[in-house]
Amino acid sequence: MSIDRVVASLPARHKPALDRLIEWLRIPSISTDPRHAPDCRRAAEWAAGQLREAGFRAELRETGSKAKPGHPIVWATGGPAGGPHILFYGHYDVQPPDPLELWESPPFEPVVRAAEGPGDVPQQRVVARGAVDDKGQVATFLEALRAWKDAAGGVPVRVSVLLEGEEESGSANLEQYLREHSAELKQAHVCVISDTGMLGRGRPAITYGVRGLCYMEAVLHGPNQDLHSGLWGGRCPNPANEIVKVLAQLWDADRRVTLPGFYDRVRELSPGERQAWSRLAYNQTEALAKIGLSPAADVGEKGYSAVEREWARPTAEINGIYGGYTQTGAKTVIPAKAGAKVSFRLVADQDPGEVARAFRAWLDQRTPPGCRWEVHDHSGGFPGTVATESPFLQAAARAVQQAAGVSPSLIKSGGSIPVVGMLKGMLGLDSIMVGFGLDDDRVHSPNEKFEIPCFHLGIATHARLLDEMAKLKM
Amino acid sequence: MSIDRVVASLPARHKPALDRLIEWLRIPSISTDPRHAPDCRRAAEWAAGQLREAGFRAELRETGSKAKPGHPIVWATGGPAGGPHILFYGHYDVQPPDPLELWESPPFEPVVRAAEGPGDVPQQRVVARGAVDDKGQVATFLEALRAWKDAAGGVPVRVSVLLEGEEESGSANLEQYLREHSAELKQAHVCVISDTGMLGRGRPAITYGVRGLCYMEAVLHGPNQDLHSGLWGGRCPNPANEIVKVLAQLWDADRRVTLPGFYDRVRELSPGERQAWSRLAYNQTEALAKIGLSPAADVGEKGYSAVEREWARPTAEINGIYGGYTQTGAKTVIPAKAGAKVSFRLVADQDPGEVARAFRAWLDQRTPPGCRWEVHDHSGGFPGTVATESPFLQAAARAVQQAAGVSPSLIKSGGSIPVVGMLKGMLGLDSIMVGFGLDDDRVHSPNEKFEIPCFHLGIATHARLLDEMAKLKM
Repeated sequence: MSIDRVVASLPARHKPALDRLIEWLRIPSISTDPRHAPDCRRAAEWAAGQLREAGFRAELRETGSKAKPGHPIVWATGGPAGGPHILFYGHYDVQPPDPLELWESPPFEPVVRAAEGPGDVPQQRVVARGAVDDKGQVATFLEALRAWKDAAGGVPVRVSVLLEGEEESGSANLEQYLREHSAELKQAHVCVISDTGMLGRGRPAITYGVRGLCYMEAVLHGPNQDLHSGLWGGRCPNPANEIVKVLAQLWDADRRVTLPGFYDRVRELSPGERQAWSRLAYNQTEALAKIGLSPAADVGEKGYSAVEREWARPTAEINGIYGGYTQTGAKTVIPAKAGAKVSFRLVADQDPGEVARAFRAWLDQRTPPGCRWEVHDHSGGFPGTVATESPFLQAAARAVQQAAGVSPSLIKSGGSIPVVGMLKGMLGLDSIMVGFGLDDDRVHSPNEKFEIPCFHLGIATHARLLDEMAKLKM
Repeated sequence: MSIDRVVASLPARHKPALDRLIEWLRIPSISTDPRHAPDCRRAAEWAAGQLREAGFRAELRETGSKAKPGHPIVWATGGPAGGPHILFYGHYDVQPPDPLELWESPPFEPVVRAAEGPGDVPQQRVVARGAVDDKGQVATFLEALRAWKDAAGGVPVRVSVLLEGEEESGSANLEQYLREHSAELKQAHVCVISDTGMLGRGRPAITYGVRGLCYMEAVLHGPNQDLHSGLWGGRCPNPANEIVKVLAQLWDADRRVTLPGFYDRVRELSPGERQAWSRLAYNQTEALAKIGLSPAADVGEKGYSAVEREWARPTAEINGIYGGYTQTGAKTVIPAKAGAKVSFRLVADQDPGEVARAFRAWLDQRTPPGCRWEVHDHSGGFPGTVATESPFLQAAARAVQQAAGVSPSLIKSGGSIPVVGMLKGMLGLDSIMVGFGLDDDRVHSPNEKFEIPCFHLGIATHARLLDEMAKLKM
């Protein structure tokens, strides 16, 4: 059978597949930084080229407006019509690499090496920004498509591929793109995404839900110039003092977010879900130790376990705060302004637009005397969850079982994949997240890595997944 | 009489005096930034050269240790022994110029121009970092010494000059210097300092008290790496969230500082002092308008007027706060650490060392679960006040009266001049602050300036002051 020929061909393909990934990782496609727009386009063109080699019709589609151009979307289609139609989604953009000084090797000069450090299984890994989030994981299905082409003449099922270039910067133009191409996208029956993780080495998982995101920036303006803190200290408002007094009110003593109505659309966990999750034997103490924290650091919303807090509860986090003199030494200044980047992780039926409005109103009600707010919405995404009974989810689970030799755990993720909420909300399309990352992959951090065995498992799983999907009766 | 010849010679000296000042202002002597250490030394050598030309024995004296060298102190002595002995103090170092983009002309390329902007008296001013704080004001007595040399063969009274190079970075090495040279310094009868301001154009003032300073930096460490705020949000402490929750507790609802014992050594204002200050017709609304703030921004410790808050009440100000992603766009990160530079202005008998210890203890009592503090002491200075009956203060007042045509107001300053507290505490030496700055000189801010008429008044005042001091019977 075709699938056997495809699977048999995979080991010989591992080396060239890794070389191709490394080529892609060399392109610094940092979407949030306008200076890297040309790199984002190069990364998109690279992926389109790969898809063409796998026998797909592939093109770059522009996003945004003349005045405010976005990064292009890679779109490709191939395979037999008539049966199931799978939409693969991924993103070719990456997070900024800072702080640069903490990288052991340059973020865009990928290196393959064995792990160091006590207690770490010495797996080979590729280290680079984007290694696992998300280029490495996109490469797992790009390589599967290529394997089907080479070993069986092409994929056994209708496949479309959508690669976004703005996932790490809020997917500002994705919603409009999906609206404009909804007719074309509605032809797909399900979306498959590789941008999530496993429970550990040898513990594959399928993620059936992700959190949403609302990312705001609030700048508090006071005097029209920086002031001498001796001559002005005590005589006028200090935006740095005032903004901490306001932001400190964002959480109550139980670490619940204090925005009015914030929890109205949050669904309580079902006893069944809590029980299933508790059976995953998720070890928070171990997870904290990996990031240098003691068990005392197991803090979060009162009344929920760590895994419940990550998968099913919303948060408010300060992702960045700034104001006044922040370099070496002392400067006695009252800053003219101070700002904070505050993001909210959303669950269940929470709406990022509603939360943004609630945050703006909350800030306005707390405007310090003589000051004014400047608030930016860096956009976000809806939360999204798939029914565990979905035949597509079952097919994906079989593929993982065959490739990994163990059946996957069904889990959720605290992260946000804007496209999941949009596809469900706008097109009624479910997303199945079959990811191969590990908890210690340093996603968004210096020395991000993707372990080679995970890379290989991803390729095999997607090769199998195409076969399992092809078998489904529509 | 000599003084008449000196005063008569001044107008012709104005142009060359300004040229000399501009030469000095071109040297970027930023003491807090190690990269500018050679510039600090150049600025010190420039001043020593000026003093030699005024007939003084001048030298550079090293500070700090081999391991941690400080910026040199300029020391010079001259004039007849036996009578009164005046110690002039000033500093040749300057604040960092950032934010650079807000300067209308480069900070170390001085320009002389008339003021722009509505309501501003079109006075000529020199614009540069250090124009008024403190090179321009030091130049007023350097030029007076030079004028006495040229017009009368030399100064009429014993004069020592001490120019510090670390005033803007906490005067880390000054205390040790004063201790090591106390015998020499004790020969002086009074210290005269030009590093303060007037009440306005044509409203000269002598400052008889300054606030002290305690400048701390607190860094809160959480996880050992930046984390993805989706995967970790709600699961572990976020140092940026936690530090704002702690710092917000630094003030109570009446804007009083909450450090235990903070007010124990603060002396209540006497009714007489409050009355005298209220007669100064200080206009807070006008002052706020100059920095773009409405009357609603007249906030500070409850129960005190703006001038009382600045001159006689202590404060806590966040001079800088930082953590996480602070560049353009969005990055969903939980930062490994967040920090704040917090300074306290001190009055009366408050002790910077005591306040530093109290702040450390206060932070320790509020250490968030799983986190740890890293606290730095950027040092500071004692507050200091002179008795208004001092014959030296009276002599200085007469000099101002003669030079300005109006008698000076006796005021205090909210700023800190570490040397004032040290000289009083270690040597019993009073400091009289005869300054010529204006409220809108943009001290420590972009486009710092010193108005030419103020510069000229300073030169004339110091020429007179030397004469008035010489008349005192010891």
